[in-house]
Amino acid sequence: MKFIFKLEQTDKLTKARLGSFIYNDVLYETPMFMPVGTQATVKTLTKEELKEIGSGIILANTYHLWLRPGEDIVSKAGGLHKFMNYDGPILTDSGGFQVFSLANPKDITEEGVTFKSHLNGDKLLLTPEKSIAIQNKLDSDIAMSFDECPPASATHEYMEQSIKRTLRWAKRGKDVHNNPNQMLFGIVQGGPYQDLREYSAKETVKLDFDGYSIGGVANDGESKEYMYQAIDYSIPHLPENKIRYLMGVGEPIDLIEGVIRGIDIFDCVLPTRLARHGHAFTKYGKINLRNAKYKEDFSKLTNECDCYACKNYSKAYIRHLIVANETLGARLLSIHNIRFLIKLMEDIRNSIKNNNILEFKEEFIKNYYGESHE
Amino acid sequence: MKFIFKLEQTDKLTKARLGSFIYNDVLYETPMFMPVGTQATVKTLTKEELKEIGSGIILANTYHLWLRPGEDIVSKAGGLHKFMNYDGPILTDSGGFQVFSLANPKDITEEGVTFKSHLNGDKLLLTPEKSIAIQNKLDSDIAMSFDECPPASATHEYMEQSIKRTLRWAKRGKDVHNNPNQMLFGIVQGGPYQDLREYSAKETVKLDFDGYSIGGVANDGESKEYMYQAIDYSIPHLPENKIRYLMGVGEPIDLIEGVIRGIDIFDCVLPTRLARHGHAFTKYGKINLRNAKYKEDFSKLTNECDCYACKNYSKAYIRHLIVANETLGARLLSIHNIRFLIKLMEDIRNSIKNNNILEFKEEFIKNYYGESHE
Repeated sequence: MKFIFKLEQTDKLTKARLGSFIYNDVLYETPMFMPVGTQATVKTLTKEELKEIGSGIILANTYHLWLRPGEDIVSKAGGLHKFMNYDGPILTDSGGFQVFSLANPKDITEEGVTFKSHLNGDKLLLTPEKSIAIQNKLDSDIAMSFDECPPASATHEYMEQSIKRTLRWAKRGKDVHNNPNQMLFGIVQGGPYQDLREYSAKETVKLDFDGYSIGGVANDGESKEYMYQAIDYSIPHLPENKIRYLMGVGEPIDLIEGVIRGIDIFDCVLPTRLARHGHAFTKYGKINLRNAKYKEDFSKLTNECDCYACKNYSKAYIRHLIVANETLGARLLSIHNIRFLIKLMEDIRNSIKNNNILEFKEEFIKNYYGESHE
Repeated sequence: MKFIFKLEQTDKLTKARLGSFIYNDVLYETPMFMPVGTQATVKTLTKEELKEIGSGIILANTYHLWLRPGEDIVSKAGGLHKFMNYDGPILTDSGGFQVFSLANPKDITEEGVTFKSHLNGDKLLLTPEKSIAIQNKLDSDIAMSFDECPPASATHEYMEQSIKRTLRWAKRGKDVHNNPNQMLFGIVQGGPYQDLREYSAKETVKLDFDGYSIGGVANDGESKEYMYQAIDYSIPHLPENKIRYLMGVGEPIDLIEGVIRGIDIFDCVLPTRLARHGHAFTKYGKINLRNAKYKEDFSKLTNECDCYACKNYSKAYIRHLIVANETLGARLLSIHNIRFLIKLMEDIRNSIKNNNILEFKEEFIKNYYGESHE
């Protein structure tokens, strides 16, 4: 269902913002980190666990759900909320990023992108109209425009053609969007080029979307400097009263830097992916539970966290579960890692309220990147 | 910790019994099905979920925990209860069954069994003394004697030598057992041979254990007729006031037939293994959620069950999770399948209380094996 974003406060020294919206009678605050439920499930977790750790909007992937189980089945179930029995807000991406990262080979034309399914090799065509039609049927609360995600290494010439095509795709998608209960967000691209980021932002805003995202910063191997610049180039041209969404970013420091630059919402598979590999966020940096030093470490996963895993289990036990390939291990670390990022966002919001987000950032960096506690 | 089994009621027409014991101030009733937590975790589930579905004793595997993380680590954690943070009763098996089923090649001598670790190929020796020493350190509430598990196809001559050696092993284990908070159970073997089952039962009872199990019935490919006969041959020679445990059995009909023949507790990996393969127990037989007919079946997993999965999710959604290889699928089906067996035991206990277990069995068979509902 549609909800109204309210800008509550803007920081004096930075571009950081506090915002809020009400959905199903629940108040949600931004800046917010959104857990990713690629296949209509945040890996290993139930909706009750997501609520317990304070999660707000969750993400589902159009590309994956189009391929399996198919948007028609989700639609017949009554939409994503009913299919997965989740009554919080859901955002679907456009499938664009997955088409460019998962599906190969691909052929990009004005019509759309032809590619082979990563599941069975079937040749498929995803167009702006198709992406929106799928998302309309999935009935998420926020749909994303279909965009191209070129690598940051693309030439200025290529990138210019690409963002102009993405703008034409955004317009085509908006024209066919046909779900009165669903918002539609536009996406700013442009790679490392200031003029193209500015052009993309201004022209996307002219199309008048319900919110705006900054894309193309989460591709493999791109530097933080590139990411921060891409945000800085784009943000001044986005309206104050709409949600600003940085796509695919979840490293703690990037959440802080993103907020300082004016971002409201983030998503990333990082916390659940790290969990499956046995890694846990801590105040003092990431730790790898597979490390032999945790074999006989019967202390709690972390002392500072209020999550179910930290309250109930030791490093040694969680290490055993991970090493023995028991899914409870990934589940406990998923709970913890997502909670860590959600708690980080709570702390960030408090630092904005207290007008000390820059001090908060310094303190965070000192702990997280300071003398190794491993 | 030690607890006292109390025989509450014996059925008039069958050998079925009702029993009870108190552990940590909680009353547990038998007949009981025990979920298996091979590696100190009932696959995919938390202790809270186990409690919610009414589980009593859970099982952990000595062989697996010996190899990983090692009994010394569990001991340093304060024992299995503290290691896995579980305050309900825990039974450990002896490792015998795993040595015979998982580890190859193996060499059986009077001393014990030499075999290669299924994890890294290390050559290891498990003896009765070692098995008990490991279980003493794991600090489970019930330890099992180390036994040989020959296949039902073994000759009378082999089986006779085997059960005599298993008796000597049982004595050796009892002699070194050294944990005042842990009970020790003996195991009756003897394959399909009435004289050997009787001999094994009588001689094991002479050693005076805290409880008795019937083993060697859950090997691959053995018939139900063989299992029921093995129980019938053994039970008359076991004391009334001690728990009788049928090892490795979890098919619903076998739980009913086992109870009718005088069994008090059962364990099996079946409910969690079936879950990982996408199967669910229902009143009308097992169903395979991978079946295409469930693609658009938005009805609840089952109508009759009170578990979290049945209350919250449709067949179509759980099917999607299983097909998409999402662990929430196995988790939901594990909750359901274990709950199904625990609820079945509740129903069995009620049928004993109501003196109608034979009618209960007929009704169960009519539904479960009747006209296919698939």
